[in-house]
Amino acid sequence: MNSNSGSARPTQFNLVRVNGTWTRQTEQCQVEQGKVSDAKIYENKSEDGVSWTVVSPTVFTYRVIQCNDILDPRNDTLLWGHLGDEALRGTSSNSTPVKRFVVMDETVHQLYGSRVAQYFESRQAVHRILPLPTTEENKSMELVSRILEEVHEFGIDRRSEPIIAIGGGVCLDVVGLAASLYRRRTPYIRVPTTLLAYVDASVGAKTGVNFAGGKNKLGSYVPPVATFLDRSFFQTLPIRQISNGLAEMLKMALMKHRGLFQLLEAEGRNMLHGKMQSCTTGSGPKVEDSSTASIRIAIETMLEELAPNLWEDDLDRLVDFGHLISPELEMRVLPELLHGEAVNIDMSFMVYLAHQKGLLTADEKDRIVRCMLGLGLPVWHQDCTLALIQKSLGQRLEHSAGSLRMPLPTGLGSAEIFHDMIEDCFLCQAYQKWTDELSSSGTK
Amino acid sequence: MNSNSGSARPTQFNLVRVNGTWTRQTEQCQVEQGKVSDAKIYENKSEDGVSWTVVSPTVFTYRVIQCNDILDPRNDTLLWGHLGDEALRGTSSNSTPVKRFVVMDETVHQLYGSRVAQYFESRQAVHRILPLPTTEENKSMELVSRILEEVHEFGIDRRSEPIIAIGGGVCLDVVGLAASLYRRRTPYIRVPTTLLAYVDASVGAKTGVNFAGGKNKLGSYVPPVATFLDRSFFQTLPIRQISNGLAEMLKMALMKHRGLFQLLEAEGRNMLHGKMQSCTTGSGPKVEDSSTASIRIAIETMLEELAPNLWEDDLDRLVDFGHLISPELEMRVLPELLHGEAVNIDMSFMVYLAHQKGLLTADEKDRIVRCMLGLGLPVWHQDCTLALIQKSLGQRLEHSAGSLRMPLPTGLGSAEIFHDMIEDCFLCQAYQKWTDELSSSGTK
Repeated sequence: MNSNSGSARPTQFNLVRVNGTWTRQTEQCQVEQGKVSDAKIYENKSEDGVSWTVVSPTVFTYRVIQCNDILDPRNDTLLWGHLGDEALRGTSSNSTPVKRFVVMDETVHQLYGSRVAQYFESRQAVHRILPLPTTEENKSMELVSRILEEVHEFGIDRRSEPIIAIGGGVCLDVVGLAASLYRRRTPYIRVPTTLLAYVDASVGAKTGVNFAGGKNKLGSYVPPVATFLDRSFFQTLPIRQISNGLAEMLKMALMKHRGLFQLLEAEGRNMLHGKMQSCTTGSGPKVEDSSTASIRIAIETMLEELAPNLWEDDLDRLVDFGHLISPELEMRVLPELLHGEAVNIDMSFMVYLAHQKGLLTADEKDRIVRCMLGLGLPVWHQDCTLALIQKSLGQRLEHSAGSLRMPLPTGLGSAEIFHDMIEDCFLCQAYQKWTDELSSSGTK
Repeated sequence: MNSNSGSARPTQFNLVRVNGTWTRQTEQCQVEQGKVSDAKIYENKSEDGVSWTVVSPTVFTYRVIQCNDILDPRNDTLLWGHLGDEALRGTSSNSTPVKRFVVMDETVHQLYGSRVAQYFESRQAVHRILPLPTTEENKSMELVSRILEEVHEFGIDRRSEPIIAIGGGVCLDVVGLAASLYRRRTPYIRVPTTLLAYVDASVGAKTGVNFAGGKNKLGSYVPPVATFLDRSFFQTLPIRQISNGLAEMLKMALMKHRGLFQLLEAEGRNMLHGKMQSCTTGSGPKVEDSSTASIRIAIETMLEELAPNLWEDDLDRLVDFGHLISPELEMRVLPELLHGEAVNIDMSFMVYLAHQKGLLTADEKDRIVRCMLGLGLPVWHQDCTLALIQKSLGQRLEHSAGSLRMPLPTGLGSAEIFHDMIEDCFLCQAYQKWTDELSSSGTK
C-alpha cells in the first residue's frame, strides 16, 4: 500500500482555450485550435484512483528605475512610471480620476510629507497619505494590519491602483507584505529614501516582518510593480545612514566585483561625506562619477544574483554574505546597531575566517578592514561573541537543508559557497585573532 | 520630464552561472559557459540614469492525489506522498527523525484525532497536532497568528517538513496562508475532509482569511506541495455537507461538462444519500460508479480552468460562476448558509438571468432547478434581494477593471463570459420571475 504514484507513465495534457473554456488535450489528440497555455497537467491512474500533477509557470516582471526630482509635479514617474508603455499612461490619465494610497515613514513624512501631498494635489489625484513609525522594533504584523485597515477603508482598484511606499527598508518591506496579502495581491511601488533601501530592499522580491523575536520570520516573495530610485532623498540622511547602505554595497563588491571594491576603497570616504550625490555638473560630456558608478554596479550585481532566484528555490546565495550571524546580533542589541552595521560586523568576522582558511592573504584582509573603517562602519562588536557565532551557524545548518551554505570571499571581488560546518578550532582561532586585532578599532 | 523609459531599445541580458556566481551576458558576448537562467534583465540608459526590467519565470508544481485509507499506518502517503520519487522517500525516512506539524479542524479532531495521533506514533514521527475551531466566523488573521506561534515553537525545517492541514475548506485556507507566510514560504499539505474542500479548495493555489467583513479579502496564491484526497472522511459528514459540496460540482457541470450535469441530474439524489462513496465492490472488472466518475470529472474540469491561471492574472474565470452575489449573501446571513448553499442560490438566480437573456430555454432552466433540488440545495433566499444583487454586481464591476466578467450558462454544460453591466430592467424581470417561481420551493 503506497501513495499510488504508480509505475505507469503519466499522460501529459496540454491546455487549450476555445471560446473562453479551457480543455485538456493530449499531444496526440489536438482536436481544436485555440490559445495554448504553458501549464501542463500530468495524470496517473491506479487502483486507488487518479493522481494529477499540475505544472504551472508564472512570470514575475518588475521595473527598477533611476530618476531625478520624483516629487516635482511635472514628473509623471510616481503616478505612471510603473506602466511600461507611454500609450497606456495616456489612457489611464484620461479616464476615471487617479487614486493612490501612500504609506510614508514618519520621519520621512516630516521632511517630505507636504511635498508629496502637493505632488498629488497638483496632479489632481485622489490620495491618502499614511505616516507610520516604520522602525525595526515596530516591524510586525500589527503594522501590516494597520495598513490593511486603512487601505480597505480608502478603497483601491486591486489591479490598477498600486500602493506606494516611501521610506526606508522597513517601510518598504511592511507595505510590500500588506500589498501582497490584500485581495491576495495588490500591486505596490517602492520609493526608497535611504541608501540601504535603495541598493538592497528595493531590488528584490522579498517582503517581511519580524515575528517571535526573529528577523523577517514572516513574509512573502512578491516583487513590486516598480521601484523608483531618486538619490536626492539622501541629502537629508545622517551620515551614519549612508554608512549603513555602503555596507550592503561593500558586500556585493567583496562577493563579485573587484572594480566596485576598488572604487569603495579609493573613494568611499568622499562618497560617504558627499552623501552619494552625483558630483557631475555643467553640460560638458558626462563622465560617470564614483558615487553614480558604485551605486549602479551595486544594483547590477544584486539584480544578477536575485533575478535567477527570485523565490530563493536555490539556497546557495552569495547575497547571504554578512547575513549568517547578523540577524541574531541585530535583534539582540536592537536598536543599537543599524542593519548594515550588523551586516558589516558579520562580514568583518567572515573576512578573518576566510583568512584563517587561507582564502584571503593578510594584506587582502587588512585592505578590506581599512575600507570598512573608511566607510564609517563598525568592524567588531562585544555582543558578537563566539557563542553567538556558533549558535547562528548551527541554526543556519538546521534551516538550510543540512548544509551551511556559507559564502566566503576568496579574493577581492570573488567568492565561493562552503557547505561543511566550520570546525570549532577554526572558528575559535579566527574569533581570537579578530578580537585581538579589532576590539579596539575605534568603533564599537 | 518623464519617467525616463527612453526611446532607445533596451539591452537584453541573459544570466549565466559560472562557479557559483551569476553574470550578465548579452546575446552577442557570451564569454563563458555555465548554467543559463530563464530570467532576463533588460537595461535602458537615459539622462536620468539607468532603468532595469527584471523578467523572472517561476514554476509552481503541485500534486493532487486520490488515495484510500490515508490514516492506515501501513500507508505512507501522509508522510511521503508529496515527494514524487519513490527513491526520495527512502532517503528521507532513513535519515533524521521525521517531524510533522498538523492542524486539524476541531470537529474533525473529535472524530479522527486519535487515529491521526496513532498514525504518526506508529510511524515514529515527532508530531504536534493542533485542533482549531476553523469555522467561517473564525476565519481571520488571528487564527493564522495562532498557527504561526505554535509552528514556531514546535520548530520545523522550512523546506522538508510540510505543515499538514486536515479539515474543511476554512481549515485548508487558513493553514495555507500561515504556511505561505512562515519564513516566506513553508510547504504545506491539504487533506480535505468535506466534499466541498475535496472538489474546490484542494484543487487550486488560493489561501485566505476574511477581513473587515469581507470574504477572503486577505490571502495568497501559493499552492500546497500536495493534496491527498480520501473520500472515506465523508462517511461521518451530515448529508447537508454533502449537498454543500455538490453545489461546486454542479457549477463545473453547468459551465463546461454536459456529461457531469447528466450524471448529477440522474444520480444526484442517490449519490447524496450514499455520501459519495464508491459502490463498486467485489473483484470483478471495475466499472466506474457515478460518485467516482462525478468527483473525477469535477476535479478534472476545475484543474483545467485553474492550472493555466493559477495566479488569476486573467480575470475572465468560468469558476467564478455562483461567486458574484454569494460572497455578500454568505457573509450577511452567516452562519445560516453554508458556502455551497450561498453559491447555489447565486447560480439559481443566474440561471433565471440567462433564461431572461435567451441563453437558456425554459426547459433547460427547469431541469437545472430540479437538479439543484435533487441535490438538496436551496434555490432561493429571502435575503438575496434585488438590492443585494445590484450592489454585488456593482462591486464586481469596480473590482474587475471595469468589466462585469459574468459567466452565464448558454446551455447545459457550456458557458460564456459577459462583460457589460446587465440593464436594470433585465435584472428586475429575472428577479421577479425567480422569486415568483421559487420563493416557495420548500427550501428557505
